[in-house]
Amino acid sequence: MNTDNRVYNFSAGPSTLPVPVLEKAAKEMLNYRGSGMSVMEMSHRSKDFLNIIEKTEQDLRELMSIPDSYKVLFLQGGGTLQFSMIPINLFRKYKKADYVITGSWAKKAAKEASKYGEVNIVASSEDKMFSYIPEISKDMLSEDSDYLYITYNNTIYGTRYTELPEAKAPLVADISSMILSEEIDITKFGLVFAGAQKNIGPAGLTIVIIREDLIGFAPEDTPIMLDYKTHSENSSLYNTPPCYSIYMAGLTLEWIKSQGGVKAIQEMNEEKAALLYKAIDESDLFKCPVEKKDRSIMNVVFVTGDPELDKKFIEGAKQEGLVNLGGHRTVGGMRASIYNAMPIEGVKALISYMKKFEQNNKR
Amino acid sequence: MNTDNRVYNFSAGPSTLPVPVLEKAAKEMLNYRGSGMSVMEMSHRSKDFLNIIEKTEQDLRELMSIPDSYKVLFLQGGGTLQFSMIPINLFRKYKKADYVITGSWAKKAAKEASKYGEVNIVASSEDKMFSYIPEISKDMLSEDSDYLYITYNNTIYGTRYTELPEAKAPLVADISSMILSEEIDITKFGLVFAGAQKNIGPAGLTIVIIREDLIGFAPEDTPIMLDYKTHSENSSLYNTPPCYSIYMAGLTLEWIKSQGGVKAIQEMNEEKAALLYKAIDESDLFKCPVEKKDRSIMNVVFVTGDPELDKKFIEGAKQEGLVNLGGHRTVGGMRASIYNAMPIEGVKALISYMKKFEQNNKR
Repeated sequence: MNTDNRVYNFSAGPSTLPVPVLEKAAKEMLNYRGSGMSVMEMSHRSKDFLNIIEKTEQDLRELMSIPDSYKVLFLQGGGTLQFSMIPINLFRKYKKADYVITGSWAKKAAKEASKYGEVNIVASSEDKMFSYIPEISKDMLSEDSDYLYITYNNTIYGTRYTELPEAKAPLVADISSMILSEEIDITKFGLVFAGAQKNIGPAGLTIVIIREDLIGFAPEDTPIMLDYKTHSENSSLYNTPPCYSIYMAGLTLEWIKSQGGVKAIQEMNEEKAALLYKAIDESDLFKCPVEKKDRSIMNVVFVTGDPELDKKFIEGAKQEGLVNLGGHRTVGGMRASIYNAMPIEGVKALISYMKKFEQNNKR
Repeated sequence: MNTDNRVYNFSAGPSTLPVPVLEKAAKEMLNYRGSGMSVMEMSHRSKDFLNIIEKTEQDLRELMSIPDSYKVLFLQGGGTLQFSMIPINLFRKYKKADYVITGSWAKKAAKEASKYGEVNIVASSEDKMFSYIPEISKDMLSEDSDYLYITYNNTIYGTRYTELPEAKAPLVADISSMILSEEIDITKFGLVFAGAQKNIGPAGLTIVIIREDLIGFAPEDTPIMLDYKTHSENSSLYNTPPCYSIYMAGLTLEWIKSQGGVKAIQEMNEEKAALLYKAIDESDLFKCPVEKKDRSIMNVVFVTGDPELDKKFIEGAKQEGLVNLGGHRTVGGMRASIYNAMPIEGVKALISYMKKFEQNNKR
């Protein structure tokens, strides 16, 4: 297999995976550990696959310190399907929820929820192009809310919560672009979910971690696949799950463990992010539009202020093997997604390219 | 990579894939054709991935002769999510549909549809344990039906339609376990769908082929991911699709083309099935419970009549590298799924084991 000429891939998702994970997957493609077949070819009810899904769940529970009172579900449909499943399942008493709008994903989630009940927009950072996380005080929240919804890390705008809002209602968080990147206290949440395609594995797998007492309140006419109860009662095997993506997730979790777990990964992530933000802040050419206290350690957004120059930067980076540095199509500029699997060498290579570029493009 | 000691895998799904497809996937795992990354790591909006999804759709259209008036959608959630999406989207005029019950998947589909409208059970073969396909005449169908639903090939019971019912309403078919195994005239259908994990690739991808004029009738409060319009308008890229499964599907389609297309594959499938049914029919020990005219060429079901002996057969087969020959957990007995990727050598090996087993277990 061809491991040469790998690039540093700063894509926001699907995104770079650890090389040892890909190497293992390639090696096991035709014959998984003496089974005589690929994981892709295994019945989801076979012993081999049951071992894979159980081990994957167990490793995730260990890495994230998930208590037994929470269910771990391996689902499909991405974050977008969760935008629907959350209100459908969690609108149980008041049919009302609080949403904090910190980007277009939160907006989409709120819009979807409004199909099923009342949505109260607690706060929004759209006034400053989502460049900060609004402060949430208790008096801003509804008394009669079924849950409070936040987007923990905002992939497009490069912001993240560093302090969680305190709410009476269960806290629900989209943790797609930060799962396993830093330690979080899962007991502060009623439900968290993450599309796998950033820090975990291939697209097509969504992980939902839900407090057990929140399951079982979906209306009777809920599509059976959209009821958390269906998946919870069947250990994510009501129908054929995305088996290969679960296997890849398992390999990634093993890799995280080999790196020392989430605490160790967090330290590496903080170091990578600090290096990159320092380079931006010290530069005369590049600027990070995000408020310092709210800066993401996963998605680092920066601009020159000149769209033509941004374009030149992105094109030039590609020539150096630093790819997918363009900002989200709705905002432009640059974005370096430095997920768990991005080695510090990649960040250093980016920084030295930035310095060279600045040298050559003095204004 | 370890290609030795591959078994013959008769699993009903997920199931065996062509060796050249797996070899190519392994080879390209760390670096897809000079991109410097795995397909798993590619942004779904990158040029490389857009080429993959477009080529996959184009090859499917070519192989199945799909006219431009049909949309091809790459979705998630398996057949089970289609059981909900079909009534939600297609109950547009009468809120009523006809269902033919030829197995437990059809039953589940009908039950799900009854959440959203009226379900008329046209016929059922449950009286004889789903061992045949009921004849459907026009006068059995409702005048005011939004569609007629069938399961084309019944994976669990080993039956298949060889003649399609004629209906005024659009014909909807679950073709999960027969897609690309024989030629079908897509223009006879309003919608067909297939989970990929039988004849196409890994689990986690569902292919829907839908006549364009049937799109756009979902109620306003439909979860956005459950509206065919969402996916149709966005060429299956409304959110991140199951990219790697689409890539694998693409490799499989290329392999089918290399075999001479669906017509050639169908001939091979018919030959494999004929060999196996002949061995069963000529045996004194094994019996196929399915009516001859309705026998599936994908899933061959047989029994000895003695559950203990069945068990011994399945265990012994495993020792010979012939695996997953157990019948579905709800019916027992044996089932050999001989999808496109099962080579004729596998069928021959099974037959010679059957003969040996019969010799050693004379009654």
